[in-house]
Amino acid sequence: MNLTFRSDVTVELVKSSASDSDVAFAARVSTQGERAQDLVNGEEDTKLSGLINFLMRERHGSPFEHSTFTFYVKAPIFVWREHMRHRMASYNEESGRYRVLEPEFYVPSRDRKLVQVGKTGAYTFEEGTSEQMAITMVSYRRTCKEAYGNYMDMLGAGVAREVARGVLPINIYSSAYVTMNARALMNFLSLRMSAEGSHFPSYPQREIEMVAEKYEQIFKEIMPLTYDSFV
Amino acid sequence: MNLTFRSDVTVELVKSSASDSDVAFAARVSTQGERAQDLVNGEEDTKLSGLINFLMRERHGSPFEHSTFTFYVKAPIFVWREHMRHRMASYNEESGRYRVLEPEFYVPSRDRKLVQVGKTGAYTFEEGTSEQMAITMVSYRRTCKEAYGNYMDMLGAGVAREVARGVLPINIYSSAYVTMNARALMNFLSLRMSAEGSHFPSYPQREIEMVAEKYEQIFKEIMPLTYDSFV
Amino acid sequence: MNLTFRSDVTVELVKSSASDSDVAFAARVSTQGERAQDLVNGEEDTKLSGLINFLMRERHGSPFEHSTFTFYVKAPIFVWREHMRHRMASYNEESGRYRVLEPEFYVPSRDRKLVQVGKTGAYTFEEGTSEQMAITMVSYRRTCKEAYGNYMDMLGAGVAREVARGVLPINIYSSAYVTMNARALMNFLSLRMSAEGSHFPSYPQREIEMVAEKYEQIFKEIMPLTYDSFV
Amino acid sequence: MNLTFRSDVTVELVKSSASDSDVAFAARVSTQGERAQDLVNGEEDTKLSGLINFLMRERHGSPFEHSTFTFYVKAPIFVWREHMRHRMASYNEESGRYRVLEPEFYVPSRDRKLVQVGKTGAYTFEEGTSEQMAITMVSYRRTCKEAYGNYMDMLGAGVAREVARGVLPINIYSSAYVTMNARALMNFLSLRMSAEGSHFPSYPQREIEMVAEKYEQIFKEIMPLTYDSFV
Repeated sequence: MNLTFRSDVTVELVKSSASDSDVAFAARVSTQGERAQDLVNGEEDTKLSGLINFLMRERHGSPFEHSTFTFYVKAPIFVWREHMRHRMASYNEESGRYRVLEPEFYVPSRDRKLVQVGKTGAYTFEEGTSEQMAITMVSYRRTCKEAYGNYMDMLGAGVAREVARGVLPINIYSSAYVTMNARALMNFLSLRMSAEGSHFPSYPQREIEMVAEKYEQIFKEIMPLTYDSFV
Repeated sequence: MNLTFRSDVTVELVKSSASDSDVAFAARVSTQGERAQDLVNGEEDTKLSGLINFLMRERHGSPFEHSTFTFYVKAPIFVWREHMRHRMASYNEESGRYRVLEPEFYVPSRDRKLVQVGKTGAYTFEEGTSEQMAITMVSYRRTCKEAYGNYMDMLGAGVAREVARGVLPINIYSSAYVTMNARALMNFLSLRMSAEGSHFPSYPQREIEMVAEKYEQIFKEIMPLTYDSFV
Repeated sequence: MNLTFRSDVTVELVKSSASDSDVAFAARVSTQGERAQDLVNGEEDTKLSGLINFLMRERHGSPFEHSTFTFYVKAPIFVWREHMRHRMASYNEESGRYRVLEPEFYVPSRDRKLVQVGKTGAYTFEEGTSEQMAITMVSYRRTCKEAYGNYMDMLGAGVAREVARGVLPINIYSSAYVTMNARALMNFLSLRMSAEGSHFPSYPQREIEMVAEKYEQIFKEIMPLTYDSFV
Repeated sequence: MNLTFRSDVTVELVKSSASDSDVAFAARVSTQGERAQDLVNGEEDTKLSGLINFLMRERHGSPFEHSTFTFYVKAPIFVWREHMRHRMASYNEESGRYRVLEPEFYVPSRDRKLVQVGKTGAYTFEEGTSEQMAITMVSYRRTCKEAYGNYMDMLGAGVAREVARGVLPINIYSSAYVTMNARALMNFLSLRMSAEGSHFPSYPQREIEMVAEKYEQIFKEIMPLTYDSFV
């Protein structure tokens, strides 16, 4: 039995139907009342940028809903548990009822801050001692080994997958496709990336922030003007 | 003042990110747990069709959510009033606050059935007499003329557009962009196309059915296997 | 034919299942992990208020979703058109297909500001001249009379209600039940009440603001601490 | 360290604002256009029942959205993972970031069928042998002991709760408040209760079905006519 341990998350763009100019055609219909797409295509960036800034400032969220992104994401279950609280998204996830789950587990990396300081909901984190790191590594490895061994024992004895999986830990990896529009994606980023001391503080768990950072890179590439305005 | 009268609706596909094989990759992640897209691309139709039929029968709706369509639609306000009851969609509509609305009005065509028979919620329609058609034409034209004239009078006197528009009738045309995923679109079609006597009867108003019929054509072209399975 | 003209909107609370302490039990489950309701009931306001302020500041919106309000609202169609863009709500509205609509129409009141100044999306309004008010009154009354007369003519001739209603103006009143949770309600208020110059400016049309103001009064009475924190 | 093992789920009704007659007032506004609540209150059951059957048959779902239920639920994490895929609901759950999770774990009961037969998505289950039951019990207990021990070790060493929890298995219990309207609740029941061979077959995992069965009992008591019609 070979257990794999990783400290990262996978985010790949499967497809997108998204662009800054798609925001513009949706917004322009308000004032033009006709199909504005062609005008928009040739538009210079400054004008587009001004429009997008205006929409963002005035909280006109709907023009951003016509741009969609589909991601393939692989992350530990405890990340998915937080991710799926975002209801403005479409999900299809790997099923522990339909297949045997692979022994791939998350373990904190060397630079994961291990000690939390401050009060509920507004934690900051500090580096752990080498002893704390050691005990974390050992605890993760031991539990995963014990759990996956027991999982395999049950499967080997003919117990149903949906029963056997009950012992698997929440740091096991799971894969899913996620489709979100740009408005939902910006909402996700604003809640799942650290923003201490800002007007809207947020204190996400580091591991979901790692997903958010990868979303952010893709978002920035595909909708650069919207991204600039959002930030 | 030139009033335009029309009896149809405009539906144009602005863009789509939709295909039968997109349904498959989303469904396959359940049993494969890895990015299945490449396998799917070369897949023969029979296999894909079997999978889609299975999903449809078992009410696994989520794999259809990763396919999205953006339409430009021009229809009378009374159609929009029904359309926007569908909340699983994104809308951006022409604004009567931001611009002067054009004098373009819906009028029933010669073959619009004018007489309703049967009980509430399960109407059927029969052809009207030529007298009924005549009175309808006259009534529509008279009202639109009076209303639009008064609208222009107020605007001419410097009254705000949002106040002046209050007199416009619900048969005036308005434009919007609509984005829906394939699951929401199938729900729309099932509720807004006539299906008398079927397991799930529906009795939509003819004018929104005209929009649904145009959506259906586009849907059928882009996702033929899903469409067949849906029907 | 007696036409009725009104300048107000009706908002009645049909029922609610909402209170400040319902916010607390939902929030407390995060840190307590057991049913916290009993503790919450006897809680002093200061502590509750502190918790609610914390949630609001940190954008923890979900604890506000367990409180729901059902309103009976009567407003002109052009108000409903804007209202129903809020998708996080449940609606049941009077049907012009199922019944003959009453001749009850909105007309601006004497103190409705008639002249719009400023640029798109950020209008301010100024009082109209008495001439502007006069032309508005006349235009509204004339159109409504013409439209409703034509509506009745078609109905009298046996034309279906759904066809005849096509000529009715968007200032005709319509009734609906609206259910929203407190989170959706606060979102509605923040977008549909004037807030010029604030961090989040909004420039709603006066008539939907009239609905929002009535919602606000009811919200304030039933969830006073949440309301204070929201403002 | 005392681990607790349970084989059931907790579902308590926290509050409801729901009744069969609330369906009626919402439906009646279509045809009456005025506040119908008072009429409805004194209504005899037969008439109400006829109306509800009509709505159900014609798929008029919106009148069921004005009735809401708030539940307190305690269930294993693998049940929550399925539950939260239902997006038409409001959730507040216990947080493993904010508190130390209790050592309370799910273990299959003696009568839990352990062997799955049939193909993907349409499983049926058969009783396991006593050996299969024994191996399941041992595997569950061993893993939980190892996992929770390691969890406590990390916490004892000062490692942050959000890091330490990574080793906990998905059969640990977690508590949440869930608010759903009657329409969403019926959708949940239809997908999460076994219905083999019916027009709409469904094959839920037994443990989420246990939650659904408790919801069903409460739903039946509070909205008996709607429940009868739904079944």
